[in-house]
Amino acid sequence: MLKNRILAEKPQEEELKARLKTAREKLAVQQMQIKEHKLPVLVLLEGWGTSGKGSTIGQVIRNIDPRFFKVASMEIIREEDKRKPFLWRYFKEIPEAGKFVFMDSGWMDEVTRDRLMGVMDDDTYEKRVAGIRRYERQLTDNGYLVVKFFLHISEKEQKRRIDELKDDIDTRWRVNQADKWQNKHYRKCLEIFDKYLDATDSPSAPWYVVDAKSRKWAELQVLETLTEGIDIAMQNQALAVPVLQNVFPLVKMPKLSEIPLSEKTIGDAEYKEELKRLQSHLGELHNRLYRKKVPVIIAYEGWDAAGKGGNIRRITEALDPRGFEVHPIASPEPHEKARHYLWRFFTRLPRTGHIAVFDRTWYGRVMVERLEGFCSENDWKRAYNEINEFEKELSDWGAVIIKFWVHIDKETQLERFTLRQNTPQKQWKITDEDWRNREKWDAYESAVDEMIQKTSTAYAPWHILESVDKKYARIRALKIVIEELEKVL
Amino acid sequence: MLKNRILAEKPQEEELKARLKTAREKLAVQQMQIKEHKLPVLVLLEGWGTSGKGSTIGQVIRNIDPRFFKVASMEIIREEDKRKPFLWRYFKEIPEAGKFVFMDSGWMDEVTRDRLMGVMDDDTYEKRVAGIRRYERQLTDNGYLVVKFFLHISEKEQKRRIDELKDDIDTRWRVNQADKWQNKHYRKCLEIFDKYLDATDSPSAPWYVVDAKSRKWAELQVLETLTEGIDIAMQNQALAVPVLQNVFPLVKMPKLSEIPLSEKTIGDAEYKEELKRLQSHLGELHNRLYRKKVPVIIAYEGWDAAGKGGNIRRITEALDPRGFEVHPIASPEPHEKARHYLWRFFTRLPRTGHIAVFDRTWYGRVMVERLEGFCSENDWKRAYNEINEFEKELSDWGAVIIKFWVHIDKETQLERFTLRQNTPQKQWKITDEDWRNREKWDAYESAVDEMIQKTSTAYAPWHILESVDKKYARIRALKIVIEELEKVL
Repeated sequence: MLKNRILAEKPQEEELKARLKTAREKLAVQQMQIKEHKLPVLVLLEGWGTSGKGSTIGQVIRNIDPRFFKVASMEIIREEDKRKPFLWRYFKEIPEAGKFVFMDSGWMDEVTRDRLMGVMDDDTYEKRVAGIRRYERQLTDNGYLVVKFFLHISEKEQKRRIDELKDDIDTRWRVNQADKWQNKHYRKCLEIFDKYLDATDSPSAPWYVVDAKSRKWAELQVLETLTEGIDIAMQNQALAVPVLQNVFPLVKMPKLSEIPLSEKTIGDAEYKEELKRLQSHLGELHNRLYRKKVPVIIAYEGWDAAGKGGNIRRITEALDPRGFEVHPIASPEPHEKARHYLWRFFTRLPRTGHIAVFDRTWYGRVMVERLEGFCSENDWKRAYNEINEFEKELSDWGAVIIKFWVHIDKETQLERFTLRQNTPQKQWKITDEDWRNREKWDAYESAVDEMIQKTSTAYAPWHILESVDKKYARIRALKIVIEELEKVL
Repeated sequence: MLKNRILAEKPQEEELKARLKTAREKLAVQQMQIKEHKLPVLVLLEGWGTSGKGSTIGQVIRNIDPRFFKVASMEIIREEDKRKPFLWRYFKEIPEAGKFVFMDSGWMDEVTRDRLMGVMDDDTYEKRVAGIRRYERQLTDNGYLVVKFFLHISEKEQKRRIDELKDDIDTRWRVNQADKWQNKHYRKCLEIFDKYLDATDSPSAPWYVVDAKSRKWAELQVLETLTEGIDIAMQNQALAVPVLQNVFPLVKMPKLSEIPLSEKTIGDAEYKEELKRLQSHLGELHNRLYRKKVPVIIAYEGWDAAGKGGNIRRITEALDPRGFEVHPIASPEPHEKARHYLWRFFTRLPRTGHIAVFDRTWYGRVMVERLEGFCSENDWKRAYNEINEFEKELSDWGAVIIKFWVHIDKETQLERFTLRQNTPQKQWKITDEDWRNREKWDAYESAVDEMIQKTSTAYAPWHILESVDKKYARIRALKIVIEELEKVL
C-alpha cells in the first residue's frame, strides 16, 4: 500500500486553509450528531516515528468538546497488559456510543514492532493478523465506525525531523531509540508495514494512508476522511450484516431433552469424601497454574435455581483467594450498554495464572437478550460466531475455558421455587422475574439447545452438569475442572 | 477454512424435511421481493468434483420462476474467453437488478485449477486474488448480494462417488479426468482450496462451506443461507459504503484552467505531411500489436464540439478495419442500467490484439451522472477508485490504456455551437441538451478537474488534447497513441 504510491497532492496554501476551515466546522457539527445517533467512533493513528501522530490528534480534537472524546496513548505496554490477551489493552479503550476515541498508535504498532524485532514467528503473526481482522470486523458489525490512518513520511523526511529534534536541546528528549532504529532500517520497516496494511485492509475498516510531510495537510486529510466516514456511518446505522458461518471445529452435543437426569445422584458419604479429595487436588493445581501463568476462565450458565451458586462455591473453596475472582453478571450498566456487548467481559478477564469465574456470562446475548428482544435478530444470530471468535482469542492467548450449563428439569425447578417461596430465609432468592422466566421455559430450552450446538468449539466446549442432585453436579464440576487443568499443566 | 472444520450436523430426516419446506417456501416468496427491491443476487457454487454443485442448483431453482433466474455453467473456458481479461467471462454473467444468477463453478475454480496444475506463478496468483477481492467488493458496494458456497466432501466420499459413477455404464461419462486427478491429489487440493478461501473471505462476500455428503442436506444449507442473506440485503439496500482511498500510483496533472490553448496550432502543410507520416506509422504498429496480441483501449472524453469525432476518425483511418471497433456511448439501455455501471464497458472490451475506441466512456459516472444526479453522491465518490481498479484489471491483463480529454475553452465552444446552428448541414450536431450542458460549464470543469486528478494513474494516465486547433489535436493524439504503443511493442 505504501510502496510506489503517490499520495494526493498538497493543495495551494489558500485552498488548504479554506478546506481546513470547512472540515473543522463540519466536525464540530458532527460531534453533536454522533451523540444523537449514538455512534461510537474509533480513530486509529498509526505511522512512522516522528510522522506527527500526536500533533495531528492534537489539532483534530481542538474542534471537539472535551466531553465527547478521549485520547488513548497506547505506546507504552505495561506489565499488566502483558498478562492479558493481546487485544485487551485496546479493547478496553473502545469508545462508548456517541463518543470519539483517538488512539495514538495501536495494535498495528505493537504487532509490526514485534515483527521487526524478530520476536514474533510467522505462525504467531498469522494468528495475530487473523485475530485483528476478526476484532475490527466485530467492532464494525456491532455499529462502530473504525477509521484507520497511517501517517507516511519518506526516509529523508524522517531523518530531517530526527536531526532537527536532536539539534535543539529542548526537543532532544523527544527522539527515541525506536525512531532512530526505524530510520536506519527504513526499507525493512516499509516492507513489514506494507504487508500489515495489505493484510488488514478490509471493506468495513479500510486503511487511509496520509501524506504527513506537512502538518496542516496531514490534519486536513484526516479531517476530511473522518468527517466523510461519519456521514456514511450515520446513514447506515443499525444495518444488518451477513451472519458468518462458523469456521471453528465444533464438538457434537446432545439436546437438553436427551439428557437423563434422574439417575445422576451421589450418596452423602461418597460426596463428602470425593469433595475433600477433589478440592485438595484442585488447590494443588491452582498453585501450579499460578506458577505456569496459565489463565483460566470458568463460565456458569444454567436454569434459575439449578444450583449455580453452591456449585461455584465448591470450586472457589479450593482456591487461594489471591488467585481468583468471581464475577456475578447482572444487567449491564449504562456505560457497559453503551459499548460492544463483549466489552464488559473482556475487561473482566483474569491475568495470566489467575482464575475468573463468571456467574452468568456473555451467553446472555443469545438467551435473555434474544428472548426479551434486547438486541436485534441480526445481533443474536451473529453472536454465536462472535462468541466463538472471542473465545478463540482467549484460547490463542493460552487460556483454559470451561463452560458449564447447570441443568435441571422443569419439575425440579418448580419444587425449588416453591421451597424458596415457603422458606422465609430463602425468599430473597426468588423474584417475580424468576416466575416470568419460568413461563418461557420452552423458548429458553430451544435457545439453549441452539447455543450449545453452535458454541461448543473444540477449544471451548460446553459441559452439561446434571444438577437435580446438586451434590452430584458439584463433584462433576470439580472433576471436569481438574481434568481440563491437568491437560495443560 | 476446510481443514479441521466440523460442519453443522445433518438434522434428523423429519426436521430436515420440515426445514426444507420452510426454506423453499421462503425463497418462493423472496423471488417477488427481490424483484420489487431491484436486488441483484449472484449465487456462486464452488466445490469438489462430484460434490453435487449442478444438482444442488437444480434443486434450488425449482422454487424460482424461470423468468427470475439464470444458471451460468462456467466450467468450460472458450478460446474467446482467453482473449479477454480473466474476470470478463464472469462479469458478463452478473445478474440484472431483481434477478438471480446461479454460477456453477466460477473464478475460484479457474484460479485454483491453474494453481494446482502449476501453470500460475506466485506473483500472478497474488494479483488474481487481489483482483478478485476488488471485483467482489465492487459488486457488493454497488448493491449486489454475492453468496459464495463451497461444497465440501471428504476424500473417501469423493472416491465412493467416482467409483459409483464409473460402475454404471449410463453415468460413466460424467466422471472426468479432473475429478479423478483431484481425488488422487486430495490433500494438495485441500491446501490450495483452503488458502484461496481464506484469502477471499470478506465481510461483504463471505464464504459458506456446505457439508455436501447428503444432497438434501446440502440443498437445505444453501437455501437457508441464501434466504437469510436476501433478507439482510433487502434490509440494507442503498446503504452508503466507505469511500476507499486510492492505492495506485498517480501522475500529477494540471487543472484545465492552467492549460494554455491559443498557441497550440499547426500549419496546413505541416499537418498534412505529419498526418500522412503518423497514420502510416500507426498502421504498421497495428499489425505488430495484432501479432503480439496486445489489447488496446482508447478512451475519448471532452467538451461538446471539441472535435472528438474528427479526432477519432484520424486514428481509425490508419487501422485495419478487422482489428478495431469504435463504441459510441450514449445513455445506458434498460438492461445495462440494471447492472453494475461498468458492465456495459467490460462487455465491450477488445480481444487481445484488437483496438477498442470508446467515444465517451465509463467516466460518465463522475461527470454527467454526478452532475445530473443519476447516481448518489456515495456512488460517484466511490467511482474514482472503482474506475482505477477497473483499469488496473485491464492493465494487469496487458492492455494499453490511452485516455484523451479533448479540450477547448468556453468561447471556442460558443463559436462552434453558433456555426453549427447556422449551417444547415451541421444542425443535426447541435441539440438543446448541448446548450443546457454549456450552462453548467463551471460545474463540469470542476468535476473534470477532479476526475483527471484522481484517475491519472501511472498505468492509465489522462492526456489532454488542446483542440482549439483541431488539427493540432489530431496530430497530438496520433503521436501519443504511437508513443504508448511503441512502449509495449
